[in-house]
Order: sequence, then C-alpha cells, then structure tokens
Amino acid sequence: MLQWLRRYRRAWLPGDVSAGVVVAMMMIPQGMAYAIVAGLPPVVGIYASILPPVVYALFGSSMTQSVGPMAIVSLMTAAVIGPLAPAGSSLYGVLAAQLALVSGLMLLVCGALKLGFLANFFSRPVMSGFTFGSAVVIAQGQLPALLGGDFGHIHMPSAALGIAALLLLVLARQWLAGLLRLAGLNPALADTASKLAPMLVVIAGTALMACSSLPAQGVHMTGTVPAGLPGLNLATSSGHWRALLQPGLLIGFIVFLMSMSAAQTLALKRNEKLLSNHELLGLGAANVASALSGGFPVTGSISRSAVNFAAGANSPLASLITAALLALALIAPTGWLALLPLPVLAATIIVAVLGMLEWATLRMAWRYDRGDALAWLATGVGVLALGVEAGVVIGVALSMGTLIWRASRPHIAVLGRIAGSEHFRNIERYPGLTQPEILLLRIDANLFFGNVEAVGERIEEELRGHPGACHLVLTMTAVSSIDTTALYALTEWNASLKRRQIGLHLAEVKGPVLDRLRQTELLQQLNGQLFLSTAMAVDYLHRTVPGWDPHI
Amino acid sequence: MLQWLRRYRRAWLPGDVSAGVVVAMMMIPQGMAYAIVAGLPPVVGIYASILPPVVYALFGSSMTQSVGPMAIVSLMTAAVIGPLAPAGSSLYGVLAAQLALVSGLMLLVCGALKLGFLANFFSRPVMSGFTFGSAVVIAQGQLPALLGGDFGHIHMPSAALGIAALLLLVLARQWLAGLLRLAGLNPALADTASKLAPMLVVIAGTALMACSSLPAQGVHMTGTVPAGLPGLNLATSSGHWRALLQPGLLIGFIVFLMSMSAAQTLALKRNEKLLSNHELLGLGAANVASALSGGFPVTGSISRSAVNFAAGANSPLASLITAALLALALIAPTGWLALLPLPVLAATIIVAVLGMLEWATLRMAWRYDRGDALAWLATGVGVLALGVEAGVVIGVALSMGTLIWRASRPHIAVLGRIAGSEHFRNIERYPGLTQPEILLLRIDANLFFGNVEAVGERIEEELRGHPGACHLVLTMTAVSSIDTTALYALTEWNASLKRRQIGLHLAEVKGPVLDRLRQTELLQQLNGQLFLSTAMAVDYLHRTVPGWDPHI
Repeated sequence: MLQWLRRYRRAWLPGDVSAGVVVAMMMIPQGMAYAIVAGLPPVVGIYASILPPVVYALFGSSMTQSVGPMAIVSLMTAAVIGPLAPAGSSLYGVLAAQLALVSGLMLLVCGALKLGFLANFFSRPVMSGFTFGSAVVIAQGQLPALLGGDFGHIHMPSAALGIAALLLLVLARQWLAGLLRLAGLNPALADTASKLAPMLVVIAGTALMACSSLPAQGVHMTGTVPAGLPGLNLATSSGHWRALLQPGLLIGFIVFLMSMSAAQTLALKRNEKLLSNHELLGLGAANVASALSGGFPVTGSISRSAVNFAAGANSPLASLITAALLALALIAPTGWLALLPLPVLAATIIVAVLGMLEWATLRMAWRYDRGDALAWLATGVGVLALGVEAGVVIGVALSMGTLIWRASRPHIAVLGRIAGSEHFRNIERYPGLTQPEILLLRIDANLFFGNVEAVGERIEEELRGHPGACHLVLTMTAVSSIDTTALYALTEWNASLKRRQIGLHLAEVKGPVLDRLRQTELLQQLNGQLFLSTAMAVDYLHRTVPGWDPHI
Repeated sequence: MLQWLRRYRRAWLPGDVSAGVVVAMMMIPQGMAYAIVAGLPPVVGIYASILPPVVYALFGSSMTQSVGPMAIVSLMTAAVIGPLAPAGSSLYGVLAAQLALVSGLMLLVCGALKLGFLANFFSRPVMSGFTFGSAVVIAQGQLPALLGGDFGHIHMPSAALGIAALLLLVLARQWLAGLLRLAGLNPALADTASKLAPMLVVIAGTALMACSSLPAQGVHMTGTVPAGLPGLNLATSSGHWRALLQPGLLIGFIVFLMSMSAAQTLALKRNEKLLSNHELLGLGAANVASALSGGFPVTGSISRSAVNFAAGANSPLASLITAALLALALIAPTGWLALLPLPVLAATIIVAVLGMLEWATLRMAWRYDRGDALAWLATGVGVLALGVEAGVVIGVALSMGTLIWRASRPHIAVLGRIAGSEHFRNIERYPGLTQPEILLLRIDANLFFGNVEAVGERIEEELRGHPGACHLVLTMTAVSSIDTTALYALTEWNASLKRRQIGLHLAEVKGPVLDRLRQTELLQQLNGQLFLSTAMAVDYLHRTVPGWDPHI
C-alpha cells in the first residue's frame, strides 16, 4: 500500500503532472459517454472518475492504470439494471451504485482469499471475441442518439451534427497524430495530443449549441448538471440486494479481467511486476468508493491507461492529479455541461468502441488453432445474439470446458531402456529395449481428479496391448502431487491389478509425494514395491520373471 | 448400440433373469419412495422405472447399470419444481416430465458433442460432500411423513408404524445377511436376499393396513394408483420451458456425474471399459423416455446397480427383465398399492439414504489433503445451508477454481549440465554446471492460457535472479501444445527480451509444435535461435559469450 509514494522520485513529477492533465481532459467526455452507455445521467460518469482512482492508488499494484468508467462494464451495468428500474429514475441510479458496491465487496473478498490466479480464466481469443461483440452492441445502441431518432425517424439537425462529429473524430484518429508530427511535434507528444480530439470536439459541439439555433430545432442536450461533489446515494436501497448478487459477481469478474489485461500489457512494457491479489483489492476498493460517491461499476481501461502511460505517468500520482482536476471541474460552474449535445457524445462513444473492433486475434487463431477461433466466434456471436451477460457465461463455460479437456489428456509414455545405459526413454521417440513381462509407464502430469480417469484408461489400454505383462512399473518423476481422488484411484487400481496377479510398482516417487503417501495405507497394501529408480525396478523384477537368465 | 446383444451368450441368461427379478422387487418400493422425494405420486416412480432402463439398454455402455429414480436427482427435481407449481397439482407432474425432457435433450446434445470428458469435473471429496449433504436433506424431509406430522404434532399410530419399520430395516441391514449366511445360504445369495428387506417390510405394512384399524386411525396411505401403463404427459406443457433450462442443465450434469460414478465403480470390478460419450447418450435417451412416459429425471443408481451386479447381471437384459416385471405389476390389479402406508415408505427412504452418509472420504481427505477436506465441507455445508442446487454450483465453482489454480502452477526447472555429459538436469535435484550468461529453463507443461501468466512471471523472476544472463534458452521437451494465448505471450516475451538485449532461444521443440509455430511469424521475429538439443544450444551460445575459452 502506497509503496510507490515511499520510493517516489522528484524526476517522476513532470511526467505525472502532464499525464494527469491529459487523462483528465480525456476523462471528462469519456466518463460522461460511458455513464450514458450505462443508462445514467452523464454527470455520474464524472462522479465515478474521482474517488475510485484515488482509492485504487492506495491499494492497486499497477503504476499506470487509469481506473474509472469503462465501455463494456457500463454496458453490463445497463443490462443488469435495465430490467430492474425505469431508465432515468432515481432508483436506477441507486441500483447502479448498489451494483458497484456488490461487485466491489466481491472483489475485496476474492482479494482477501487470494484468488488472483483467476485472472488466467479467459483465453485471449475468448476475451477478444467478448470485447468485439460488446463493442458492436454498444455502437449499435448509440445509433439512435447519434441520429436523433430510430432509423425510420431520423432527426436531421441531430444526425447532421452527430455524423459531422463522427467524421471529425474518425479523421482525427487516422490523421491527427501524423499531421502534428509533420508540424514538428515529437512523435510521443503528437500521439498523446491526438487523444484529446474527443475533448475538442465536445467543446466545439457545446459552443455550437450555445451560439446556434440547434437547441431550438430539437437537438437533445445533456441537461442541467448538478454542481458540487456527489453524496452518498445508497440510503434508499431497497430489497434488490439479492437480485444484484449474481450480476454483481459477473461484473466483478469482468472488471477484474478487463483491468488485468490492460495492466498486464503496460506492465510488460516496463518490466513491472503486477500483483493480481493487490489488483483485486484495488479494484474492489475502487468500486466500493464509486458506490459511496453515487457512481457505478468502474475498472481499469486499456485505452485511457495507455494514454496515461504514453503521456508520461510514472506513478499513481498521475491518477490523483486527474481526480483532483475532475473534482475542480465539478466545483467550478457546470452550466456549460448542460449544453453538451447528445449526438456528439454518441459520436465519441462510437469512435471509442470502434477501437475495440479488432479481427487480428480471430485471424491469427483461425490460422493457428481452429478451436481457439471457434471459441472467439462462440463468445462474440453469443454476446450479439444473447446479450453481454450470456456472453460472459459462454466465455466461462468455454474456458472451463477447455481446462477440463486439457486436464483429461495427460501425457503418458511407455519406456524402454536405452541399450547399455541406465536411462529409460519414451519408446515412441527413442529405440529402447522392452520386455513383454514388464510394462514401464511414465506419467507426465500431476495426478488429480481431472486426469485420473484418463490415466486409468490408458493403463488398461497398455495392459491390453501387453498381455504378457505381469509387472506394471509407474515412473513418477513428473508427479509432484497426488490429490485425494487420485489416491483413491491408485488404491482401486492396486486392488484391480492384484486380482489379475499383476504387480504394481512405483519408481522415482518424489520426496514430498512419498512423505504424504506414507500417511496412507496405499504403500502397505501395494501389490508390489517402491523403487528409487526405473533401472533398479527393472533389474530387480527381471530376476523374478521365470526363465530369466542372470548372465544376460 | 446393442453390441451386448450380438455377443450374448446363453450362459449369461440365468444371472440376468435372477438379477432382473431381484432388482424389480427392489425397484417397486424404491421407485415409489423416490417419487415421493420428488414431490410426485408414488406410481410415477414406477412409470419412470420402465421405459428408461429399456432405452438405456439400447444406448448406454455399462453392462450392469440400473437406470431409474434416484434419491438425489429426485431431491433436485423437488427443489426445481416446488417453486413453480403447487404440490400434488397436475402441473407439477407435467413440469417434472418436462424437466426430464430438458435434461435428457441436454445430455443428448452433450453426447453428440462428445463432452464425456466432463465426467472428470467433480473431485471425489466434492462428490462425497454433495452426496452427504443431500442425504441429510432427504432424510430430514421424510421425518414428518415418518412421524405422521411435524415434531410438535406427532401422530402416534403413524409414528409407531414408521419407527417400527425403520428399526426393522436397520436391523435387516445390519444382521439379515449374516443370519441368512448362518442359515446356510451362500454369502453372495445372502447379501442379495437381504436387499429385499424393504420390499418385505412394505408388503407387511400394506397387509397390516388391510387387516387393522390403522387407516381408520388416520395413518396416511399412498391412495388410489391408476392402473395401466402411463401415457404421454407433456401435452399441457406451458411457458415454463425457459425457467427449466438452467435447472435442467444442472440436473443433467448431476445425472451424468452420479451415473458415471456408479458405473465406474462396477466397471472396474470386471475390467469393463466404460464409454463416457455413450453414457451421455444412454442417460439422455433414458430421460427423454422418462419424460414421454410421464416420469421425472432418472439416473443410474449405485445402490441398485450394485445389487444388479451382485445378483448376477451379465448384460442389460437384466434391466429389460426388471422393466417387463414392473410393467406387469402396473397391468395387474394395483388396488393393493393404494393401501401402502406412507410412514413405512418414509422409513425405506431414510434407511436408503443412511447408506449415503459416509465420513470415510472426509476423514481420509482431512489426513491426506486438507484442501480436499475443505472442499468436502464447503459442498456438504453448502447443500445443507443453501439447498441442493446451490450445492452443485458450489461444487462446480470449487472444481473450476482448483483446475485453474493447478493449471496456474506449472513446473519449471532451471537446468544445469551434468559434468562431462550431454545431459541437462534440474539443478535443484542434481549438481549441474551452470554459467551466469546462459539461463536454461525447462518448461514442464503445455503452454496455454491457464499457465502462460505464471510461466511469464517465473521467467522474469529467474532473470532477476540471474542478472548476468544475456541468453535465455527454453527447453521445450515437455511442451506438446501451445495455444493462441501462449503464442501471443511468447511473441510479447520475445519483444520484451529483445528490448533488454537478452536472446530468446528454443531447444528441443517437438515436431508437431514446431510445425504449427512455422505457420506464424514468431520464428522469423525470434530474438535468438532454434536448437535441436539443449546441449547444442549451450555449446553454440558459449562461443558467443565474450571471454569464452574454446579450449575448455
């Protein structure tokens, strides 16, 4: 906690200040836009951008993560709260804060239980398909706001304004950085400055509304924004806690995955170490803070964090500066925020999520691993067809299925002796000497409930293929653990082999594994012996086989 | 399908006939009892015992599995349907059949997708804890029926009858087999005969009701049983399909796990091969058949299958004979079934589930693997405190968590050269020669999304521990696959190491892995080389290290 402050260096300050300012200018339009995606008044997006990054700076482990509203998490918020409260009602806002509280508490519990390893849950294709599908859903949801009405009922002034803003933003995205570079800015500065385009377009749009007849023509605006800092908003919380438990868990999960994938990308660039359990605590505390300040679920955003990083952030101080600037913006007169045209905000949302539409992972997976490509497609299509919550469930089911499938295919090698040596190798890869009476199997995986059935089947298969075998030696070099299920299985295999008069011997059992096996009855009941090495097992068993010639 | 019929031998017939008869006598009281557990009229339990085993005989792979009503699946059925329809209503029966249909179709789909590997999902402690908790819930649920009322309002004649039946059954369970053996029966026959005690107690109870004043005193009976075979019961199915989807999936999952664990135990005793994908199809078809004949979810029962096995069943013909006898029992006059006293049926249920209360797995896990013991307790307590559905979810979450946790801890060894040889071994276990400039890591796991983060962290940790290393060699002997996520990670590690001027070399990459990597850009971009062996890598890199003496 606050380790970064203790080792803070003066040289970091300029970078932190400039990143703090840049991210604040990016955060104002983005926070408002993502509040709209969540179905909330735009100002709530700014509320959710103040306390959460401050709290994250205390607990999180990433140095450059920018915590606040994020498109996909906002979409999930809307999907959860939409059916529970009418849009625009005060209940909606209360439930959104409550959802952040539930997610935050769950993240804190997971952090306390050190469940950070769950960050490895989604494969990259699943994550990419999920992001792609969500981006399409978000963009599609903003079309009516962009055009001032549904497809049949387009409001021309709104549509003109929205599409103009969209074009400007797309052009800025494509060309602005290059133009600034040509104008003499250094490349890093040019890239960063180009990220301020949404803020400039929003300011221009607001100015246009102030000086033109567009409001009179019916272009929608954000409306009055209450000045001042947000207050606690959970007082009226009603009996919806139960309904928010499961969605809160799903959102907490996505908050964690999204933030970790953003932070990992950046940590790798600076060889920083990311502590996933600290991330859980940081994100949990940030969401609780968001709830307490009238916000909604927040997470680390890759787009904003990358800008923070590129603008020179060296420590979470940058985020603290951003938060301070946003608080100032709320304390300052906020009348101008009321004039912000909704079509322009919709344009910023659409352009922001266009950046999340990438096919590269799907293309790569399609060429490299068809199964991964199908997982991408299943998740992406799942989000589009069944919604974002179902998309998470599909992603979880696919990941789970893949894990079990992988676990259930352990590698097992039949060993043969390399002539004239003490070495035994996989006979499929090296020409090794074998004997019909002794079957040597090396198990190349820890034995546990996920693979014990497969190992048992493989043993039976090899025994069918070696009908003359009267001794089975399991070489356990690669077995570092045997769980309770596998212990039972070993006991049952032993009994079954005993009935068939086949000896079961264990060789090269690792010290810690052996220590634990000694606490059980398996070793006393073993229908065979323990050997220090495979060679010792073979040399010994050799002598027990009838007709063995000791002179060979 | 029907493979067993093609290779049927005449010698199997006596065993199949006797097992068929014994299981039928066991099935009548058990089927009625488990229908009561599911909240259904007793006769439905007999409906569900006719068509399902016939259909299972066509598709399943186990030779001795007895498919029909089963206590835990009945409990889950009651938990699902209870909130949707009033007990005793015809809607309740329709929904129970509909649930069997949904579960059956899901099992068939899983079978078609060859998802049989999911049988490895629950660890043995989780399964044991789940069974234990469910047994307690079932026994507790039968107490009012046993005593003729709640604890405050015990109906003395009912309680006397119920407790008498309970004592008889407990005594029979403990002593009957022994007594029969003393009376000269051979042990196997004595064991089997003792399993008929519930049938005898039920017949005695019914006779008592017929000749005594107990019915007049208010002892509840099963009531009129409609004669004849069941008809299709899904016609009135209403809009509950959606509500049954998720519970149907959970029940299908438990149906599969319960049946597989029963069949595996028996298959091991006869060295039969069980095909989990065939089991999915067999159980799916059996549940669809149960739905079509007005039943409820069914599965293979370990207690009944063990009796089937012990009574000499050699093939599914035994189950066909059982089904035929049950159908006959329904066609025959069923008036006597109406007199069956409910306290006696409750006693048979309680005694049946007492057999499922075993502490041995918990005790063993507690001594051997504390984590497994905690999983047992979490699942068992979860079922007791939150219900059987929540118990399944807890079991799934624990299994998933364990899988990810295991996957996220791959074994990685730092290698050193065994002096004077071409062999490289783990320096923690063998004294090996190392050089500060070259770090050799052997990755002992397939690289995939579940462990790639952990591998990356370990690499960074080793590089911090070997600050002089300018070459990193990854020995890939144990890597049989690299998924898309891991391919991305390798690419990122390569870029990161390149920036730090550390070479990344791959040694002993397996043929199939190499073939797939060649389709990507990783090898062209590799900041190092591919080597056939670790020894070749070290010999080559040696020469590039400044100050190396070629004469050593």
